[in-house]
Amino acid sequence: IRKAQGEFALAEDFGFNLQGSDPHSSARFGELHTPRGTVETPVFMPVGTLGTVKGLTVDQVKTTGASLILGNTYHLALRPGSERVERLGGLHEFMGWDGPILTDSGGFQIFSLSQCAKITEQGATFQSHIDGRKLELTPEESIRIQERLGSDIAMVLDHVVALPAEREVVRDAMQRSTRWASRCLEVASRQQQAKFAIVQGGLDVELRQESAQGLTQLPFDGYAVGGLSVGEPPPEMYRMIAATTPFLPADKPRYLMGVGRPIDLLEGIARGIDMFDCVMPTRNGRNALAFTWQGTLRMRNAKHADDRRPIDETCPCLACRHSRAYLRHLFIAGEMLGPILLTHHNLTFYQQLMSAARKHIAAGSFGEWLPTQRGVIDSISQS
Amino acid sequence: IRKAQGEFALAEDFGFNLQGSDPHSSARFGELHTPRGTVETPVFMPVGTLGTVKGLTVDQVKTTGASLILGNTYHLALRPGSERVERLGGLHEFMGWDGPILTDSGGFQIFSLSQCAKITEQGATFQSHIDGRKLELTPEESIRIQERLGSDIAMVLDHVVALPAEREVVRDAMQRSTRWASRCLEVASRQQQAKFAIVQGGLDVELRQESAQGLTQLPFDGYAVGGLSVGEPPPEMYRMIAATTPFLPADKPRYLMGVGRPIDLLEGIARGIDMFDCVMPTRNGRNALAFTWQGTLRMRNAKHADDRRPIDETCPCLACRHSRAYLRHLFIAGEMLGPILLTHHNLTFYQQLMSAARKHIAAGSFGEWLPTQRGVIDSISQS
Ligand SMILES: [Zn+2]
Ligand SMILES: [Zn+2]
Repeated sequence: IRKAQGEFALAEDFGFNLQGSDPHSSARFGELHTPRGTVETPVFMPVGTLGTVKGLTVDQVKTTGASLILGNTYHLALRPGSERVERLGGLHEFMGWDGPILTDSGGFQIFSLSQCAKITEQGATFQSHIDGRKLELTPEESIRIQERLGSDIAMVLDHVVALPAEREVVRDAMQRSTRWASRCLEVASRQQQAKFAIVQGGLDVELRQESAQGLTQLPFDGYAVGGLSVGEPPPEMYRMIAATTPFLPADKPRYLMGVGRPIDLLEGIARGIDMFDCVMPTRNGRNALAFTWQGTLRMRNAKHADDRRPIDETCPCLACRHSRAYLRHLFIAGEMLGPILLTHHNLTFYQQLMSAARKHIAAGSFGEWLPTQRGVIDSISQS
Repeated sequence: IRKAQGEFALAEDFGFNLQGSDPHSSARFGELHTPRGTVETPVFMPVGTLGTVKGLTVDQVKTTGASLILGNTYHLALRPGSERVERLGGLHEFMGWDGPILTDSGGFQIFSLSQCAKITEQGATFQSHIDGRKLELTPEESIRIQERLGSDIAMVLDHVVALPAEREVVRDAMQRSTRWASRCLEVASRQQQAKFAIVQGGLDVELRQESAQGLTQLPFDGYAVGGLSVGEPPPEMYRMIAATTPFLPADKPRYLMGVGRPIDLLEGIARGIDMFDCVMPTRNGRNALAFTWQGTLRMRNAKHADDRRPIDETCPCLACRHSRAYLRHLFIAGEMLGPILLTHHNLTFYQQLMSAARKHIAAGSFGEWLPTQRGVIDSISQS
């Protein structure tokens, strides 16, 4: 039992070791210890929504450099169901990934995917986006599902609101999220699963700080910044991160949920974020958009038709063993291998971006390095 | 130049080494030497229509045990075009496959895919199945395209007719195919590319023999049996193979084109065939049908939902690292990884089938072994 004599205990075999920080920004690097291995931060987590990072085998995910992946509680609870995953040995066994897994809580998917979502103090009721079934998700049930899935890091259920919204609506959802976070800790029973809280508060600095202060009263293993990247301009998002991280404990990992473009990751790191996840590299890969240090390439473009160069001479991925001409051909011909290879490339690029950031933080050069990465800064996406 | 002093010379660095045969059938095993490596026969060639075996990286194709793959001249000539492939270094370089490649001639695709195909003595005119462009393909142009692609084995252009057809129509197409085969040899200019002729003659034993006798007057490096597996009952196909192979030279490889089910491969081997290609393992893999020694499994079936066993305990493929339950989940959820893994499994199974056949031929037990393979004999497919 996680609770001992009326107090909360932190997860076993889990810890964050801050190793250094950048003198010219709030960037930091460290190690996240989990029961399934150590993760170097800053870290990007590929999204494995339904027990698979779309288009790649687990070995291929590993060769991108990924050490920690994300699974979606909402999706897995609908298909194949958390009881079934538990019967089949848990999510790691189910999908064949032996490294650490973080599962989200389902809160964001209820907000973004489900129909007729209704939030009460008790929890959320909504209709499945698959078959319209009426379902309920409470903070307690979200944790129970994540415990059945057996992830190494579980997220609390949060109440996400569409922005813009009136301040009272945002405050109400934020305060409810804090109460729900407390209920998540109360019900948690798996000691080897870390629990992360999620800071809410929309685009309101005061509400973000109130949220962070409320949640940090509780003994979470890490803290996420949620409810961002939902349509607000990037500078607004950066402002919210900068307003939040100073109110989070330095010795706990900080996770910016669902973000984002390569530049958003670097700007997040500069403001003290350690962990990221996003479908952008995988989804854009399937749509023929390649991320590179020199900006993005649309691989269907006719200009690649006779180009014998790889996307990036220095990239160790599977796509970069081939010419741009071949990759273009695969997309034009509608061959599965195009999305497969470009997914591998984009995930590799994201990992290399994190690795470069980490190296520059350790060298004290992150603050000077970031503004020189014009190709990354100017990257567009079609997500 | 392939022709020397009015005579045809065989391809350089190419040869077939017959190593043994089964005492109770016409089955045989051997080695096919090519400039890009040696291939053990009987051999199954995965189909890489458009410069990719659908869904797999070249490394994954290799780990199925494949040593020789097939490319489709018709498809590659339409997209990305043979001149482009040549500019990009040839088909091997283009797709990153360093083993041998056989290309077909386009004859079968003109028959099966193109619109408004019209055959004259000169060649075929037809409309592209992609964009309706009017195109022409002569025996000479088919060889020129295959030389640009740079395959290790090229097939002659043949005239395939729909069955059933009147005997005179079948005979006319067969005799034209022989004249075209001769024109293919005449125009061939790449010494390091083997040329295979294609026996035609429908379901008529005499015409098949006339075709074989005509073609074996010419110095081809190998002989294919074409125009089968186009809807006729399997026993008819087996009868045609048995009627043809005795008229083919024992010291040249024999290739049964576009066949087929696992049992068809074994029955073909029993009648003296050395080489096969078919989309069945890949296409069925994408459609959730798994081939096994115990028969076929439909992976979408609800009975697999909680089954922790792999498809086959002894299979070394990527799919068999996972449970049937996981594979079913991937197909039900529409995840790309389902088709990827099942393609890898089916191709691995086909390679293991060839490997087992070879071992039993070498041991002199092929004739007894074949009838015991009930799972293979009873396999159905949805191709
Ligand atoms: Zn790459
Ligand atoms: Zn297998």
